[in-house]
Amino acid sequence: MATQVVIVGGGFAGLNAAKQLGGRKDIAVTLIDRRNHHLFQPLLYQVATAGLSPADIAAPIRNILSRFKNVKVLLGNVEYVDFQSRQVQTDIGVIEYDYLILACGATHSYFGHDSWEKDAPGLKTIEQATDIRRRILTAYEDAERCTDKPQQRKLLTFVIVGGGPTGVELAGAIGEMSRFTLAKDFRSINAKSTRIFLMEAGPRILAAFPAELADRASRDLEKLGVQIWTSSCVSEVDSDGVTVGDERIQAATVIWAAGVQASDLGRRLGVETDQQGRVVVEKDLSLPGFSNAFVAGDQAHFRTNGDEVLPGVAPVATQQGRYIANLILAELKGKPRTEFYYRDKGIMATIGRNKAVVKSGRWQMTGWFAWMAWLIVHIYFLTGFRNRLLVVLQWAWSYLTYRRGARLIVGTESVPTKSEI
Amino acid sequence: MATQVVIVGGGFAGLNAAKQLGGRKDIAVTLIDRRNHHLFQPLLYQVATAGLSPADIAAPIRNILSRFKNVKVLLGNVEYVDFQSRQVQTDIGVIEYDYLILACGATHSYFGHDSWEKDAPGLKTIEQATDIRRRILTAYEDAERCTDKPQQRKLLTFVIVGGGPTGVELAGAIGEMSRFTLAKDFRSINAKSTRIFLMEAGPRILAAFPAELADRASRDLEKLGVQIWTSSCVSEVDSDGVTVGDERIQAATVIWAAGVQASDLGRRLGVETDQQGRVVVEKDLSLPGFSNAFVAGDQAHFRTNGDEVLPGVAPVATQQGRYIANLILAELKGKPRTEFYYRDKGIMATIGRNKAVVKSGRWQMTGWFAWMAWLIVHIYFLTGFRNRLLVVLQWAWSYLTYRRGARLIVGTESVPTKSEI
Repeated sequence: MATQVVIVGGGFAGLNAAKQLGGRKDIAVTLIDRRNHHLFQPLLYQVATAGLSPADIAAPIRNILSRFKNVKVLLGNVEYVDFQSRQVQTDIGVIEYDYLILACGATHSYFGHDSWEKDAPGLKTIEQATDIRRRILTAYEDAERCTDKPQQRKLLTFVIVGGGPTGVELAGAIGEMSRFTLAKDFRSINAKSTRIFLMEAGPRILAAFPAELADRASRDLEKLGVQIWTSSCVSEVDSDGVTVGDERIQAATVIWAAGVQASDLGRRLGVETDQQGRVVVEKDLSLPGFSNAFVAGDQAHFRTNGDEVLPGVAPVATQQGRYIANLILAELKGKPRTEFYYRDKGIMATIGRNKAVVKSGRWQMTGWFAWMAWLIVHIYFLTGFRNRLLVVLQWAWSYLTYRRGARLIVGTESVPTKSEI
Repeated sequence: MATQVVIVGGGFAGLNAAKQLGGRKDIAVTLIDRRNHHLFQPLLYQVATAGLSPADIAAPIRNILSRFKNVKVLLGNVEYVDFQSRQVQTDIGVIEYDYLILACGATHSYFGHDSWEKDAPGLKTIEQATDIRRRILTAYEDAERCTDKPQQRKLLTFVIVGGGPTGVELAGAIGEMSRFTLAKDFRSINAKSTRIFLMEAGPRILAAFPAELADRASRDLEKLGVQIWTSSCVSEVDSDGVTVGDERIQAATVIWAAGVQASDLGRRLGVETDQQGRVVVEKDLSLPGFSNAFVAGDQAHFRTNGDEVLPGVAPVATQQGRYIANLILAELKGKPRTEFYYRDKGIMATIGRNKAVVKSGRWQMTGWFAWMAWLIVHIYFLTGFRNRLLVVLQWAWSYLTYRRGARLIVGTESVPTKSEI
């Protein structure tokens, strides 16, 4: 009988593991996800800022894996894993495994203030992205209708909490949108007077980048009207704005791009997890004591001797997914395991049009060349020819026209019910 | 002071009136809509069947009208119109007008069975389209996970109520999707075994078309596996299916494409309306007794001597919007009013790939040529270069690959809350 491999999660780790195992006749793969689609999260901020449509950066997992007859994709929710009896308990029944790969990803952490979520949504899913898009666009519409100046000022104020790559890219995109895209569309307000605050608790933004690159990114953001507040820890979030120490900013729209915590499945399994809920794994990404169960991607806490814990980014997840698949294939041939080694190709962030910062090994790039590198890398790693083509075309169109093509306010709150019409 | 023209609704009628009045210095236009976007409804069924993204067939009204400095766009809800004092009462205050154009469109009618809406959604808004898309795609996912045969059969059964163009195009698209797009993606079910029922209360589908064309459309639909039930009046809809007289079909997904009723603003205004809530208008589309207030598009009941009431389709709304704008411009120059005359260019409906029926005057077309005509006409009338380009590319891609690019299950019911993750 074929070796049963169960993969939980269709993100970068799970999908790449499944692709690597696809087409092997001696292996039967079952991939379970609660979503029907794989999401290219690095571009999700562009959905939130009306540049791209959700379907441009997402694809059905079962279609991506369709050509592999040994891979079965199920829409389902994993409730528990019994490592002793090698069983995954899901809402659609129990699935047995010979090898298990857990790659359930991460969500936002509000550092104990979960009530902030409704006023400061995070950006991890398509629904969250279209919700943020709705909030941003609705703020401008409300400001256009508003005659009260302080209220208008509040509506045209955006606060982004967290100065990592997501926060920086969001702030840059909103800055660009306010200065170029929306400037001519309103009659009562001046969209260029939009205020954008980027709040960072640490001493500088882009902590993972060299200081010179973070400086350059700060200057580029400031040119787009973004006010950067470093060493500024948000102590309160409500529907009217944020409090930072004894200072107060009135803002109708707050977006959360700060803490991250791993899927809480890890905590429920009784295994060792770190503060962020990530499962502490061995050098081969397996669970201590259960060599046939692996954890990968944002859900894994992996540290090589003396180094920092690997960050929750797509390249780490992709390499871990492939590594585990190859380890399983090798083991079935009787070969010994090797340790996981992360090949760091670098990190990058973009700041509006023509600007980006890139760090790769000892190389550093800024400005237009960095921006081109950012474009090429993101198009290259996007899944599928259709999505690549659509994204390139929409970027070209937006670049030439200064417009953004997906300025739709949709969502439950704006749905007219029959009785209203 | 400039003549104040207020337009309620940014559909085909309102948008075309605003464009026609745009750029005239002696006229100030205010367009109010509850949505920020103009929607190209003729292609909405392709969003519901995962072929296109919402933003491909919608554009922000304020951006479409951005170049006309005399046009102001407001997001708002009209509550009442005082025709005597020429005031529009909205949720954002009172707006005075010299001329008023009401073009609020229509929604679905369940013929007194409003409780059917939750089990049989209609297709008029983007939210409804993505909701129907979610229902269709989720039915296949649930069927793949299901081991109970009758339940699986129910999940793979789709009922479309209403055999007009929307019902026919939906049925054709689901047929094509089940036979081509999904066939290779599932392991436990055979997507080709999908049952699609098209229920029509009248003696034949496509009542507005000549009988030969309706016959041809029926045969084309049958080739895609659609079972057409004519003279079949649905007497009950629930979450398990539909009852037709003393027959019963078990179906997990029911879509409503039957009755239409106009925006209920008309009924609230104390003016004469027909059974469907459409406002009965004069030969110049004005309200009886109020020559400076007009009603256009799906909301208007217009009949020339001896003819039938004009149908609620985009060409009628477009021509009416332009006609009213031109009438206002002429009247301001002291010219007398002329009657509205509808130039009927024809009607068309498509049935999956390579098939359509077209009637234009005495001309009739079927098959590939009709399908090409359908494609060209729909691309031509779509708003904006970006949307045209994206739609053409996605159609070409779908045609060549048999895939559909927007197979995303999103929506409130599939959103994981933080506590679930």
